[in-house]
Amino acid sequence: MTSETVHLDGHIIDSQTLSRVLDVILLQGGTYEITTFRIGTKREEPSHAEIVVRAEDTGTLHRILQDIGQLGATSPAHEARAEEAPADGVFPADFYSTTNLESFVRMRGQWTPIERIEMDCGVVLDASGDTPRAICTPMHRVRKGDRILVDELAVKVVPAPRKDPLHVFGFMSSDVSAERPKELTVAAVARGMAEARREGKRILFVGGPAIIHTGAGIYLEQLVASGWIDVLFAGNALATHDIESALLGTSLGIQLRTGVPMASGHNHHLRAINTIRQAGGIRQAVEQGLLTRGVMHACVAHGVDYVLAGSIRDDGPLPDVITDVVRAQDAMRERVKGVGLAIMVATTLHSVATGNLLPASVQIICVDNHMETITKLMDRGTHQAFGLVTDCQFFLKELAARTATT
Amino acid sequence: MTSETVHLDGHIIDSQTLSRVLDVILLQGGTYEITTFRIGTKREEPSHAEIVVRAEDTGTLHRILQDIGQLGATSPAHEARAEEAPADGVFPADFYSTTNLESFVRMRGQWTPIERIEMDCGVVLDASGDTPRAICTPMHRVRKGDRILVDELAVKVVPAPRKDPLHVFGFMSSDVSAERPKELTVAAVARGMAEARREGKRILFVGGPAIIHTGAGIYLEQLVASGWIDVLFAGNALATHDIESALLGTSLGIQLRTGVPMASGHNHHLRAINTIRQAGGIRQAVEQGLLTRGVMHACVAHGVDYVLAGSIRDDGPLPDVITDVVRAQDAMRERVKGVGLAIMVATTLHSVATGNLLPASVQIICVDNHMETITKLMDRGTHQAFGLVTDCQFFLKELAARTATT
Amino acid sequence: MTSETVHLDGHIIDSQTLSRVLDVILLQGGTYEITTFRIGTKREEPSHAEIVVRAEDTGTLHRILQDIGQLGATSPAHEARAEEAPADGVFPADFYSTTNLESFVRMRGQWTPIERIEMDCGVVLDASGDTPRAICTPMHRVRKGDRILVDELAVKVVPAPRKDPLHVFGFMSSDVSAERPKELTVAAVARGMAEARREGKRILFVGGPAIIHTGAGIYLEQLVASGWIDVLFAGNALATHDIESALLGTSLGIQLRTGVPMASGHNHHLRAINTIRQAGGIRQAVEQGLLTRGVMHACVAHGVDYVLAGSIRDDGPLPDVITDVVRAQDAMRERVKGVGLAIMVATTLHSVATGNLLPASVQIICVDNHMETITKLMDRGTHQAFGLVTDCQFFLKELAARTATT
Amino acid sequence: MTSETVHLDGHIIDSQTLSRVLDVILLQGGTYEITTFRIGTKREEPSHAEIVVRAEDTGTLHRILQDIGQLGATSPAHEARAEEAPADGVFPADFYSTTNLESFVRMRGQWTPIERIEMDCGVVLDASGDTPRAICTPMHRVRKGDRILVDELAVKVVPAPRKDPLHVFGFMSSDVSAERPKELTVAAVARGMAEARREGKRILFVGGPAIIHTGAGIYLEQLVASGWIDVLFAGNALATHDIESALLGTSLGIQLRTGVPMASGHNHHLRAINTIRQAGGIRQAVEQGLLTRGVMHACVAHGVDYVLAGSIRDDGPLPDVITDVVRAQDAMRERVKGVGLAIMVATTLHSVATGNLLPASVQIICVDNHMETITKLMDRGTHQAFGLVTDCQFFLKELAARTATT
Repeated sequence: MTSETVHLDGHIIDSQTLSRVLDVILLQGGTYEITTFRIGTKREEPSHAEIVVRAEDTGTLHRILQDIGQLGATSPAHEARAEEAPADGVFPADFYSTTNLESFVRMRGQWTPIERIEMDCGVVLDASGDTPRAICTPMHRVRKGDRILVDELAVKVVPAPRKDPLHVFGFMSSDVSAERPKELTVAAVARGMAEARREGKRILFVGGPAIIHTGAGIYLEQLVASGWIDVLFAGNALATHDIESALLGTSLGIQLRTGVPMASGHNHHLRAINTIRQAGGIRQAVEQGLLTRGVMHACVAHGVDYVLAGSIRDDGPLPDVITDVVRAQDAMRERVKGVGLAIMVATTLHSVATGNLLPASVQIICVDNHMETITKLMDRGTHQAFGLVTDCQFFLKELAARTATT
Repeated sequence: MTSETVHLDGHIIDSQTLSRVLDVILLQGGTYEITTFRIGTKREEPSHAEIVVRAEDTGTLHRILQDIGQLGATSPAHEARAEEAPADGVFPADFYSTTNLESFVRMRGQWTPIERIEMDCGVVLDASGDTPRAICTPMHRVRKGDRILVDELAVKVVPAPRKDPLHVFGFMSSDVSAERPKELTVAAVARGMAEARREGKRILFVGGPAIIHTGAGIYLEQLVASGWIDVLFAGNALATHDIESALLGTSLGIQLRTGVPMASGHNHHLRAINTIRQAGGIRQAVEQGLLTRGVMHACVAHGVDYVLAGSIRDDGPLPDVITDVVRAQDAMRERVKGVGLAIMVATTLHSVATGNLLPASVQIICVDNHMETITKLMDRGTHQAFGLVTDCQFFLKELAARTATT
Repeated sequence: MTSETVHLDGHIIDSQTLSRVLDVILLQGGTYEITTFRIGTKREEPSHAEIVVRAEDTGTLHRILQDIGQLGATSPAHEARAEEAPADGVFPADFYSTTNLESFVRMRGQWTPIERIEMDCGVVLDASGDTPRAICTPMHRVRKGDRILVDELAVKVVPAPRKDPLHVFGFMSSDVSAERPKELTVAAVARGMAEARREGKRILFVGGPAIIHTGAGIYLEQLVASGWIDVLFAGNALATHDIESALLGTSLGIQLRTGVPMASGHNHHLRAINTIRQAGGIRQAVEQGLLTRGVMHACVAHGVDYVLAGSIRDDGPLPDVITDVVRAQDAMRERVKGVGLAIMVATTLHSVATGNLLPASVQIICVDNHMETITKLMDRGTHQAFGLVTDCQFFLKELAARTATT
Repeated sequence: MTSETVHLDGHIIDSQTLSRVLDVILLQGGTYEITTFRIGTKREEPSHAEIVVRAEDTGTLHRILQDIGQLGATSPAHEARAEEAPADGVFPADFYSTTNLESFVRMRGQWTPIERIEMDCGVVLDASGDTPRAICTPMHRVRKGDRILVDELAVKVVPAPRKDPLHVFGFMSSDVSAERPKELTVAAVARGMAEARREGKRILFVGGPAIIHTGAGIYLEQLVASGWIDVLFAGNALATHDIESALLGTSLGIQLRTGVPMASGHNHHLRAINTIRQAGGIRQAVEQGLLTRGVMHACVAHGVDYVLAGSIRDDGPLPDVITDVVRAQDAMRERVKGVGLAIMVATTLHSVATGNLLPASVQIICVDNHMETITKLMDRGTHQAFGLVTDCQFFLKELAARTATT
């Protein structure tokens, strides 16, 4: 039998942190004793607990400490240990793997923040300067010889706050039920956007092609043109069908003005792509006067940055599409800096990919007409997302109307 | 080897009737020879085919003739045969079972129309008067001794027309894809409603409680109040949550004005039901000034007929609910007369139940955010339905706006 | 400003009860002070808290006390108050509305258990005998003059335990994700059934017609025949298609042996119903040797009780179907006594209806290929359900195989 | 008014080709006159029609001829016209865009087959040799100066045959309903695989990671190991979770043997990827004895070719993943040669991408627990797919059992 004492501080009762820590200890086969407990008697006052964790063997104890460490339970500080990356793109076997929560590493007796946190990366320790640094690093970017953090014990993670019921999105927090007053939810998103603006944070929009097929492109175009979107993540399909609709009036070959399929409309998207390839790219097509409306035109015209990431179902693709997915991820990584709110609409692929890159502190609204897309996003670790089960067409029409009057 | 010659007339090429008839013959193990064929050279001209159907045995031939009879292929007329119903609510073993298509029975050498056609019923033959009659009759209504049509050979069914691509709903016809321009579809429904009005046909609305939960009740109320709905089919839940929202401002305990759950809101629907039971019913609650707004209030205030049909998940229920499902079906049966357009929103149970009662000539729009609800409606024989995969909140808001300007 | 002190006892940390109580106080606009707190230092030891709840006005305080009462926070005991039911089927306006959790009423200074607890009912107080009684009563059963409990303050609810992660279904507890090892989950259900048997509890099966359409009827038949099911809740459709398959080898007109649609198979279900109506009922058809296999035959042959509850989409219906939904609920209510485990497969209607009748202590497994059916069941108050997103055919085949070897 | 006469030959009645041609003419604003019609009197005999198509203007007529050309209606032969590609990766503006149907181009008065047909490509005409050739070419592969087919009039498309109801998959043909006997469908897939083997055609398997998460990896491994799969298309996720399960016994951090989440299991997939990156690749990991079981091991051990195509949600990725999506498409293109049957399980992305590359003559079974995945595949032009709405775990377990006895 082996044991270690951990400390837990803060709003650990009403954030349910304490109960989750105790749960994990039992679930992983340990036992506990709460040796000290001071409860905050009022809302503002933090509580403090000291807990002795016991386990049969050190392996079990280590696993428990790892897990409850992710909930904020810190052992009396261990100092960070590092090992060298054995090759480019390869971590040492026992590397520490990040979550998307704000985290600190114990270096030279100090809690050093992990920079650029995102989930499923390693941490490069840089002790060369006066102040040691810890940098969250995706696997493909590590270089042979980089000093990589190993072992979880020297890491302190700030547990995810519970979704605040008094927050602008608070009333959405309990679940992703489809049976909610939908207009209110859209109104809350509009308020959340205004709030992000006031706080000087950027707004990221992640969208799928159904936006165009359902006829909602004009509303997204309005949002872009009125300055509500700072950066757009999408794929070849959204851009292609948007351009198809701007050039030929169709999407998937269906006339957006009448809903009627057009003769040979099935190849319109190819013709649109071919036109842009001939022009040299979307920006060039705008400059040459070929492309005069639509979402992509609005992005170019209003200086909104975009990343079009490739996928294997792409036709063409458009010259602007980054066909290498690792390079596309890096381009997205670059653009998420300063983002405070991400709105994800009608795309599982791009939503999960973006969720992987965002720290837990970025608020996310995920809109899809399938509850399972939202569930999948959360299952993949993006727990901070608020879900809205509805039609993208309706959502964007309502959002464009509400932001217009904000 | 046995054979029989059938005739097929009308737009049998462009309605695909001929190819379907030939398919069925082969599929059921028969062979065919087309002995006569005159093609309509232009759109307006009917075609005429005479087909010898051959099969190994008379059982197979009989089954083929039954099946292609449902497609309009008529044998040189057999005279109708009847047997007596052996008991109340029981047909003779070999009873003819109806589809929802316009149908005729050969009686005294004449094609007599089957009255009040609906699917999955029997046919009572009444030869007592000067003119023989054939009346479509649900199983529970048959009385011992009624003369019931047996055998399919004396029946001629008018095959379902293909969905006309030039019709107001035509562009929706090919499938129920979620990836369609949604506003256009709603506009088409609004035009379809105006068309039904012009033609003097009644409009039936069938709705589920998600209409209220999502905050769309006010739009349905508008449609009722502006006279667009002639009859409403719903259940205890829609009416209860509508009344809960009128009396207490909540639905499922969630405040419709703010989206926030209310203290003890989970029992609001029970309090709403109790209030109406105390009043004696919905109409009485309106008359007593207790109920002053909402969908049900609008129905009472504007004289719109409604059927609230019971289900085993009902709380209460409201006094207006018909708790016996067979009686509820009969009440619905009574109200579908003269209906030309049925709009079904966010309810599988009531949509399928209503679909069962409607002749194939009634146009149906089925709106649900799950494609499978629409598919199920069609699978159950209501092939004429047009599907729209979208949110009921959006659909009703858009429809209320569009009908307001029609 | 007004206040009241409440007590909270038990595993209030690791059941998250304390944090939820504090949450509700803040959310409803109150404040709190924890005046006493003794923490259980080990798993087995209960904790104890005394909390002063403050609110601006008595209305707010009352609402808070109501809500946290549902979580187990009891005020120094108020004595139960009752009012007379003003009419048959009508509660007094301020009636106490039940949850499905174990509950007690303070009568003559004692905590009296509420008998036959189910959600969304009232409570009849009977002080006539030596020992006072409190009986959970559905609205339609109350009689004018019955003494009905009003006001929540004299009620103590035993909060729902957290799903125990070490329980046989524990690993399913965190969510209803479709991405789980499915065979393991079925194995857990089989173990849960064996456990229910050992504990002398009854097993209820609630099923929809897709069980028959997908060809899984033979597996349900096996479960019934081998004594694993004590009572079956279903509708006309399951029984009809089961009998259709026993008599004619088809379901929805499709041959279950080959998957090929049969000629005129669309009316097979009507013929099956007609045959049973002629026989007088399912039991009679078995006794007359007409019905010799299938799920319903197995129920009759093995003395398994069943309730077939009517719905408005029923054809026929079978004579065994209870067409009045309130009577059907009462029949179901009668049968759920002693049930310890309910298995709900492929039916939203019957699952929600049954969930409404079951106390929270009955374990529920809900199997459906749509996550939203399971979510809806939980949203309607049946929080104890474990969900499994899978195909009913697979589930039943696997379950029949696993129980055969248990 | 302008007109042109087209010919239509073959089984144009029972394939519904004639009725669809007449439909299109009317829908696109034309009129027709059938000047000659000879009907095949028996199943084996082809029919022949000559149709005068009339339209207001040549633009309309041209569009009609394009569209009905895709249905097999050929004008008296036009000779192919070509234009030079203006730049690498760019077609001339009026390029002919392919479908996935067998097609011919009129060159030197002969119908020349278009080689390597797939949808959404252009056609390079090569008249350099004795025999002219026409080669289907994706946009990114065209080189400046290539002679590209323009204008549809010189193309003859062999219309898609109707799904044959007597075929092994025939009974699945009418729809993708979830309410089908599922075991029969799996049995049909097993027979289809045996048939493909007998005919010397290759079998392609396209799979998503849910196969591993649900515990079905062992069944896919069996299919690979017993030689039923010739080539596997998947992504980083399937391979990673398969390797995670082989190395660590988990998938998504959940123990596949018990279903219980493991401590820190969320990073197991990263550790698996890191191990393979360290080894240099999957084959190397097998050769080094690190990877000894699972699907990917079976592929290496049994010489089954695989393409792992990158996506932006990939972690790592594994060294075997082709991160450039255009290169990945080309690698897939290379592998589909000789494929006669494609089985697509639980992946929308890879299914649609593969569907884009397959000629219409390749049979496709698409298995997913969402009907909409299957619908989307068909909506994107892969009309030949048969859908099965079920759980991948069940499907693969059943398929492995059935092929084992075939």
